[in-house]
Amino acid sequence: MNKPIGVIDSGVGGLTVVHELMRQLPKEKLIYLGDTKRCPYGPRTPEEIKKFTWEMVDFLLTKDIKMLVIACNTATAYTLTELQNKLSIPVVGVIQPGARAAIKSTVKDYVGIIGTEGTVKSNAYSHALKMLKPNIQSTSLACPLFVPMVEKGILNGPEALETVKQTLSPFLIKEEMDTIILGCTHYPLLKDVIQQVVGPEIILISSSEETARETSTILQVNQLLNINNGLCAHQFYTTGDVGLFTSLTQKIFNSNIENLKSVSIEKVVI
Amino acid sequence: MNKPIGVIDSGVGGLTVVHELMRQLPKEKLIYLGDTKRCPYGPRTPEEIKKFTWEMVDFLLTKDIKMLVIACNTATAYTLTELQNKLSIPVVGVIQPGARAAIKSTVKDYVGIIGTEGTVKSNAYSHALKMLKPNIQSTSLACPLFVPMVEKGILNGPEALETVKQTLSPFLIKEEMDTIILGCTHYPLLKDVIQQVVGPEIILISSSEETARETSTILQVNQLLNINNGLCAHQFYTTGDVGLFTSLTQKIFNSNIENLKSVSIEKVVI
Repeated sequence: MNKPIGVIDSGVGGLTVVHELMRQLPKEKLIYLGDTKRCPYGPRTPEEIKKFTWEMVDFLLTKDIKMLVIACNTATAYTLTELQNKLSIPVVGVIQPGARAAIKSTVKDYVGIIGTEGTVKSNAYSHALKMLKPNIQSTSLACPLFVPMVEKGILNGPEALETVKQTLSPFLIKEEMDTIILGCTHYPLLKDVIQQVVGPEIILISSSEETARETSTILQVNQLLNINNGLCAHQFYTTGDVGLFTSLTQKIFNSNIENLKSVSIEKVVI
Repeated sequence: MNKPIGVIDSGVGGLTVVHELMRQLPKEKLIYLGDTKRCPYGPRTPEEIKKFTWEMVDFLLTKDIKMLVIACNTATAYTLTELQNKLSIPVVGVIQPGARAAIKSTVKDYVGIIGTEGTVKSNAYSHALKMLKPNIQSTSLACPLFVPMVEKGILNGPEALETVKQTLSPFLIKEEMDTIILGCTHYPLLKDVIQQVVGPEIILISSSEETARETSTILQVNQLLNINNGLCAHQFYTTGDVGLFTSLTQKIFNSNIENLKSVSIEKVVI
């Protein structure tokens, strides 16, 4: 089926999911919407998060998407079930795929989770793990310095190494932990440094890679894969400033994004 | 949802999928049917494979299963699409999950596939890879000595090492290959020896692990997960001799299977 996949995020972090979708599903067309104007969602109330997410979804539904990917941990935690219940297209979030991959990977049934303060507070990953496998143990750690560092374009080198080392120090003494979920869409960009700090024995799960992989599964099972060949003209939208979005993505991904437009999605409640 | 998951295979190999389902989805009840009487399916005609597979499916449908797992490469290659089209429950096979995991894992876009002669001849894995990602390269190798060796209970030691080394020698010179799919449900039992032979840099994809993981994805997206807690009384059926099935599984898995019954599923065509 030749319709596009819609991807929403509070900002630019979800582009790591887009990058993986392009790599794992190169025949699929993508439409990305980043709500950079109201980013970050983490500190907002559940009502705001729901309202903003629905505004993004309503915009993408006008683009006739065949599937929705919520590439934002906070939005997934607060809206996934509601969106799955109310939309007639398949919906996937970033939390369950990461949890599922961790369950497959862990031998000691002990998983570490790193994320933003909001994600860690929500307990969404430990809940997702326990729901599938009740006897699994997990420990979460908030890494508030990682997102600002990534958005400055610092992805490796001594500063990144030192920040990661200091932040993850509570995890380095947990011998029973054999798997760590990178529970924020920015963190895959720090994967090499994190691996260096935790050592080669620990398996790092990228929620972005796993979400792209489950998108592939769900499209195939629902017979929604694009079976035609041809070039994909992806589209990108931001609710904020185009220049800022471009400079952020340039810093983070070291490449330019084409077809980027600014869009207003806010609905005034009367 | 408290209904069972149905798992079918031509023999006992599919029990590696069962083992992974139990590990990754410990709250789900399983009903396994192994057609050991007519095993192996590999050398049979497509018509026979379809008829036998439908007989297995019809038996499991009487058990009110909520999802079907085809834990057999040959049956997947010949019946997956038809079963997905005709059944009202979700159906997953062993080929696509392995292909998808390989696409996620390979950096060099070059994947090796090992399987039985039948699976290799069917080109099912290379087709599944190409359908998702047209530019991916793959090479297949039939390993006819592996299944008989596993069924003798030889899973490690000098004989296993020598057999694996000789069989895989054509693969050891392919520097561009960074991922190998274990495209037969018996092969995960040789994973350690295979890893030793190909070296630690090569990522081995177990179709059994990946099929269990995609079963989890599909159950969750379709809101079919068992959300209650409680012990699962799995059921096992064989079309052949109970004693033979038990001795084979004892050799392979080093444990006894409870709740095993012999059953006749053949339908006489008038």
